[in-house]
Amino acid sequence: MLVVMNANATPEQIQAVAEKIHALGYMPHVIAGPTRTAIGITGNRGPEGREALLLMPGVEDVVRVTVGYKLVSRETHPDSSTFPVASTRVGGGFTLIAGPCSVENEKTTIESAQFLTRLGVKLMRAGAYKPRTSPYAFQGLGEEGLRILAKVRAETGIGVVTEVLDVENAGRIEEVADILQVGTRNMQNYPLLRRLASASKPILLKRGMAATVEEWLLAAEYLMSGGNRRVILCERGVRTFADHTRNTLDLSIIPVVKHLSHLPVIIDPSHGTGRAEYVPAMSRAALAAGADGLIVEVHPDPRNALSDGQQSLDFPAFEKMYASLKPLAQVLETEIL
Amino acid sequence: MLVVMNANATPEQIQAVAEKIHALGYMPHVIAGPTRTAIGITGNRGPEGREALLLMPGVEDVVRVTVGYKLVSRETHPDSSTFPVASTRVGGGFTLIAGPCSVENEKTTIESAQFLTRLGVKLMRAGAYKPRTSPYAFQGLGEEGLRILAKVRAETGIGVVTEVLDVENAGRIEEVADILQVGTRNMQNYPLLRRLASASKPILLKRGMAATVEEWLLAAEYLMSGGNRRVILCERGVRTFADHTRNTLDLSIIPVVKHLSHLPVIIDPSHGTGRAEYVPAMSRAALAAGADGLIVEVHPDPRNALSDGQQSLDFPAFEKMYASLKPLAQVLETEIL
Amino acid sequence: MLVVMNANATPEQIQAVAEKIHALGYMPHVIAGPTRTAIGITGNRGPEGREALLLMPGVEDVVRVTVGYKLVSRETHPDSSTFPVASTRVGGGFTLIAGPCSVENEKTTIESAQFLTRLGVKLMRAGAYKPRTSPYAFQGLGEEGLRILAKVRAETGIGVVTEVLDVENAGRIEEVADILQVGTRNMQNYPLLRRLASASKPILLKRGMAATVEEWLLAAEYLMSGGNRRVILCERGVRTFADHTRNTLDLSIIPVVKHLSHLPVIIDPSHGTGRAEYVPAMSRAALAAGADGLIVEVHPDPRNALSDGQQSLDFPAFEKMYASLKPLAQVLETEIL
Amino acid sequence: MLVVMNANATPEQIQAVAEKIHALGYMPHVIAGPTRTAIGITGNRGPEGREALLLMPGVEDVVRVTVGYKLVSRETHPDSSTFPVASTRVGGGFTLIAGPCSVENEKTTIESAQFLTRLGVKLMRAGAYKPRTSPYAFQGLGEEGLRILAKVRAETGIGVVTEVLDVENAGRIEEVADILQVGTRNMQNYPLLRRLASASKPILLKRGMAATVEEWLLAAEYLMSGGNRRVILCERGVRTFADHTRNTLDLSIIPVVKHLSHLPVIIDPSHGTGRAEYVPAMSRAALAAGADGLIVEVHPDPRNALSDGQQSLDFPAFEKMYASLKPLAQVLETEIL
Repeated sequence: MLVVMNANATPEQIQAVAEKIHALGYMPHVIAGPTRTAIGITGNRGPEGREALLLMPGVEDVVRVTVGYKLVSRETHPDSSTFPVASTRVGGGFTLIAGPCSVENEKTTIESAQFLTRLGVKLMRAGAYKPRTSPYAFQGLGEEGLRILAKVRAETGIGVVTEVLDVENAGRIEEVADILQVGTRNMQNYPLLRRLASASKPILLKRGMAATVEEWLLAAEYLMSGGNRRVILCERGVRTFADHTRNTLDLSIIPVVKHLSHLPVIIDPSHGTGRAEYVPAMSRAALAAGADGLIVEVHPDPRNALSDGQQSLDFPAFEKMYASLKPLAQVLETEIL
Repeated sequence: MLVVMNANATPEQIQAVAEKIHALGYMPHVIAGPTRTAIGITGNRGPEGREALLLMPGVEDVVRVTVGYKLVSRETHPDSSTFPVASTRVGGGFTLIAGPCSVENEKTTIESAQFLTRLGVKLMRAGAYKPRTSPYAFQGLGEEGLRILAKVRAETGIGVVTEVLDVENAGRIEEVADILQVGTRNMQNYPLLRRLASASKPILLKRGMAATVEEWLLAAEYLMSGGNRRVILCERGVRTFADHTRNTLDLSIIPVVKHLSHLPVIIDPSHGTGRAEYVPAMSRAALAAGADGLIVEVHPDPRNALSDGQQSLDFPAFEKMYASLKPLAQVLETEIL
Repeated sequence: MLVVMNANATPEQIQAVAEKIHALGYMPHVIAGPTRTAIGITGNRGPEGREALLLMPGVEDVVRVTVGYKLVSRETHPDSSTFPVASTRVGGGFTLIAGPCSVENEKTTIESAQFLTRLGVKLMRAGAYKPRTSPYAFQGLGEEGLRILAKVRAETGIGVVTEVLDVENAGRIEEVADILQVGTRNMQNYPLLRRLASASKPILLKRGMAATVEEWLLAAEYLMSGGNRRVILCERGVRTFADHTRNTLDLSIIPVVKHLSHLPVIIDPSHGTGRAEYVPAMSRAALAAGADGLIVEVHPDPRNALSDGQQSLDFPAFEKMYASLKPLAQVLETEIL
Repeated sequence: MLVVMNANATPEQIQAVAEKIHALGYMPHVIAGPTRTAIGITGNRGPEGREALLLMPGVEDVVRVTVGYKLVSRETHPDSSTFPVASTRVGGGFTLIAGPCSVENEKTTIESAQFLTRLGVKLMRAGAYKPRTSPYAFQGLGEEGLRILAKVRAETGIGVVTEVLDVENAGRIEEVADILQVGTRNMQNYPLLRRLASASKPILLKRGMAATVEEWLLAAEYLMSGGNRRVILCERGVRTFADHTRNTLDLSIIPVVKHLSHLPVIIDPSHGTGRAEYVPAMSRAALAAGADGLIVEVHPDPRNALSDGQQSLDFPAFEKMYASLKPLAQVLETEIL
């Protein structure tokens, strides 16, 4: 941390701050400049004491210089993470996850799984428990949805990615799913993160609707520091003033996350744009920007989907997009997984 | 809803949309304009079918004209809500809630309660369970914190406002608290909202960090539709590009909520600004804008607070602010509760 | 500035950065911490050289610790600025500016001026040149509008506040107006700011739609460093995700600007909310938060206004609001000017 | 437009609104729904009258259903625009514009032009007049910069893209430049847009820092309706809460603009990210998303650049990126221009 003193701070105030830093157990380094004095701090391992310092007379600001995450940082783990999931892997390739927004019934779910399997897609998304903005909207099939997912997984061999909404159902979902999804609204649901830190399955951690990269990586740190090292970050668009898409899909997060962390990062262009017609362009952009994969909404009949139909590709549209990704991956020297 | 057709839509496309609306069980009303055709829809009670319509050829947009909340709406409940809490009430006055960010120990908690009681403040905030961005930060005293709160409440008679982080601890907290707080990160934690819908205590529902008013009122609708009619809305600042305060405190929400809903709305200037020195100005502004109260962080020794010290008023500062609110309330023809 | 080195930076990299700082003519102060090294810089007077340092191997970040504005800063000018305008003053009171969005014709302009003068309002706003989002919208009366303003000013004695859109018309407007307004879209129109820096009239500088406080104060610094010391800052709402008001009116800017600068700051609740019904609440809040005044849209017949009718108060509504501000000002120990 | 009545609106209020619509010269279409009545409007050609309607008793909202731009719309001009510029063209390919942030001196400018020409890049960017946030920062070489640009253009044959800050200098710049750039701060500088509407050169119109797509397209409409049909839209990142990049580069704008307009859209990854290391990933993403080109900052020695060094690629980095775009373009069935 660095304490920036007011231009008019007195020598006594500067002295008092230095002593306070000592009292906190750290080392002060007074740097007297022509217009103002700054005081560097060493010996601390986080922002503890920052608030006390901010409240001292003559202090203008206390600047943090280190981030709070450790295990997710590339500084402590230079190699990119990769780990096996179901019959494929995440990291070191471009992993496709596709499927309907929610498990609606056995028929459309198995239809989707068969379609995806035929194309070579190894992981299917589908929600049994759905977080819905309105209490009057379809809330998912719940346990019946899990039963369907288990059956489809057994019959087709496809890996299953599904959302966990609370601690209560975590165990049941863990039995059925290959990847446990934490939704954007739960990125900072710490009791849930603590529970999933001890889960036996990898976690797909969606970025919160207005989360900074640091907050997102700290949420991942909850999972890793609790013991779950298989974390997949997922950008799904953030909330801004822009009204031409459902959310603002922030693809620059891809090189930024790659710089800061060793964790894989995948993109959700369906929630990111909110309209199926924009999904192929953003999927190709994600691949070109270096993402580790996609999670895309696909539905056999989007017009009659119970949720998110507007942003779901139908089978022909997905197949067409899929075909366009393959040669792109080749040129980019990666592979579709 | 209103379907807006593309300027180049064909008569066949318009006809198909009208038939689809019929098939959904609604009534279409075709309005042919000079540049394009629109089709009004009646008979629907929500946005169901919107996505199917959006995907039809020739459709440019489907505009929603009604909001999804009902019980929280002022249209269905013209009188402002008010209800008793502990020895005071919320609604129809300016209710003060003050206290430390977290329960740190028995001493500072009782000290705070005594200080507040002496001034006439009837409700104290203090967190036993704390949601923290970093897994390495102080996470609250938990059950020990609840024990302290129960003791302080019994000894001083002050009402207690404290945060519920998960379904698991809801019951225990319900026994101790007079108001259950749902934090900004949990505004859309629907399993938690469903649990609290059947709680025996009022809920203070903080606005999500990037929540629209509609999303916030729909979160309140989860509580009300589940049976809990005592909901207090709390604005605590939202996330924007602005970097001069911790969050951007949106005081215009006060007249807007008053227009849309009958629920009381209070302001949290501590999280809203993030710096104690800005709290008094924003507290007075909240009162002048017509808010139903405040929730403010106060600490006997902010410099040594375990959390949020930077934004906590010390006792003399709070007392001074409190003194300034009284005559203001009088001029505004309301009263400090 | 403070250079933060990567945790894995080598001694050679640290040495190279220190030498580069020397080469830039500054002093490096190496601070070796347990996880990483930081290097404080003194002798610089701005962020020059920051980019060069950022590009050096081993550098993680270069943190700025001082802001770039000087003349507008309260550090260099501890007393709040106040200056006379027309028959009143700005600073050290609560100055009201009111009037129609645009000069529509002589009749409504003189009617507005007479109404305001009768109430005791000394300054009238009205645009002759209007910046409009659409090229097909009413663009203001231009020179004819200036002629009307000059006449109304001569006849009623009211001071005139009107917008300057370009350098070309600045001189003509300067002759007629008592305050020259720079609109939100022009806050960073530097040729215009440079021209107005030598104007003979005070400048009302609206905050840009997405401007940080630093950018806003630097725009004011353009005016002050060019010789115009009479600058009035005006918050008119910023652009965020929130959709319940036209803009998000950021009242916390009031205590923040008061902390950082000696310049007066006034509030525009009309553009800030976009709806007349929310204007009185936000006007009272602005006064309670310590603003130096208001600029409010008032129109004799808002329903037939050529622009901004939705956010304009009619005469009775303005009169009612005005009456409510007087006792509030008294309690707050300020006065309506 | 569609008038949405309050749920409690009386028949008299509905009648009054219908009559007002008649009085405005439009046709009302009353649609009585189960919870509320809506009134469709036809015969209007824009939002005129919207505000008058919003102020009528019983009116909840007036929803606009048509956008205000016409000439830029794909509805009125289904084929994508393309036009020649210097020795290349914009539209129907992937046009590269590269070069230093500002003209610093003759040497680096000619060096840049020769480097780019050798690679096959036909257009060079470089600012002679620079809009700078601080009045104390380097403001560009001005006329001397134009002289250098003219010379470099004559000697190397490279096309020149440079920014116009004001009407005063527009003519001089028009003589030297092949494309006139309107910067993000000037997107809504309407006097400037009106001047450039009659320019003899194409305009590169950067998206405002917080501009919606509609505002951006309306700014382009100013240019087109004034007679300049050669408009290039340029996304350069918008302002959001995100702090990991200088701006948030919104690549989803590419398919959205392609849907709404026939104008070409190019991407500025340098300002969009603010750091050279993120530029190649975002450039490839822009190409994959279907953009019509790039404008990239390149500098012979970024560490000693007078502005934007941090986000400028050096020659080897640009050459490497350029090499990676070629095969990508081939797979995407477009070509680098």
